[in-house]
Amino acid sequence: MKTNTTKIDNILLQLPTWLTTVVAEQSDTLPTPEARMHFVIQLARLNIEHKTGGPFAAAIFNMETQALISAGVNLVIPSNCSMAHAEMIAISLAQKQLNHYDLGAPDLPRFELVSSSEPCAMCFGALPWSGIRHLSCGADDMDARAIGFDEGPRHPDWVKALNERGISVDTGICKTEAKEILQTYAKKGIIYNARQG
Amino acid sequence: MKTNTTKIDNILLQLPTWLTTVVAEQSDTLPTPEARMHFVIQLARLNIEHKTGGPFAAAIFNMETQALISAGVNLVIPSNCSMAHAEMIAISLAQKQLNHYDLGAPDLPRFELVSSSEPCAMCFGALPWSGIRHLSCGADDMDARAIGFDEGPRHPDWVKALNERGISVDTGICKTEAKEILQTYAKKGIIYNARQG
Repeated sequence: MKTNTTKIDNILLQLPTWLTTVVAEQSDTLPTPEARMHFVIQLARLNIEHKTGGPFAAAIFNMETQALISAGVNLVIPSNCSMAHAEMIAISLAQKQLNHYDLGAPDLPRFELVSSSEPCAMCFGALPWSGIRHLSCGADDMDARAIGFDEGPRHPDWVKALNERGISVDTGICKTEAKEILQTYAKKGIIYNARQG
Repeated sequence: MKTNTTKIDNILLQLPTWLTTVVAEQSDTLPTPEARMHFVIQLARLNIEHKTGGPFAAAIFNMETQALISAGVNLVIPSNCSMAHAEMIAISLAQKQLNHYDLGAPDLPRFELVSSSEPCAMCFGALPWSGIRHLSCGADDMDARAIGFDEGPRHPDWVKALNERGISVDTGICKTEAKEILQTYAKKGIIYNARQG
């Protein structure tokens, strides 16, 4: 039987214009974990306000200079792509900018990923391949579950598993502010999710 | 301190020309699990021969018609993107083609992901969000480790975890042929990997 197969030859994930502008204008370094998390939570807030995706944001910072390298927001619905989580976008943009698939390559500085929520199972699994050396998170799995999202079948001992791959982890940074963003979204946004059984 | 931030506003993952051609020409349906796996392993072989990425391939099939929907290969090195695993490419292409971030949406047929190797931690975590209903794998984690790759910190009970999310799993399909592809690549290809501690 003959069927029609796809002629699509690429995957394009386009950032919202507002995000490109905000990132370009963020020229000051952000020296504290709280300042970096506040910046990322602000991106999640703007993603809700502009209706350009889910209530999640993430950014990559140079750990030596505290300079912003790249930022991503959740683009799952507008891009029709379930892998378009904020962390995946931020990591991929940083790798594109640095022309390397491994942000932990020997000739590069160390990089931190700051995420408004703890990573889901997919983003957790992406971290060892990304080359980042440190992860900072805001809201946790309980906060996400409280509004109908969840982190998926994440490794039960995920922090230790990352530590064993050379990635240190800090959780609960600006947790109250990070949780509030999820609750703001829950009042009006689409809670998409995988079927759970 | 002022720094330079990225002006990059998109992530573009471009398929190799040969893959687009092979997919367009694959108009016959593939009715058996072995036929579908053989097709996918052939893509992994071609990815090695064309030097367009790692020795991994994956494809999405309509479970009702056994028609090919999309196919991906590992593009990590040529695209400078650590998330560009074969499974992620195949899933994203199918979602783009069907204009939906959830291949398990109520108005769609059921879809199967066929992968030349078992999923790594990232691709495992991506499956519940993708909406696929069945996973078929060839080579296993041991086969990947034997040539220096690994599956990362995957959930220790990953098959059960997928089953609990409504995704059935078959492993070891055409395992000998799938393993041979990895060994072929190991003789001349780049074994990139994350640091493991």
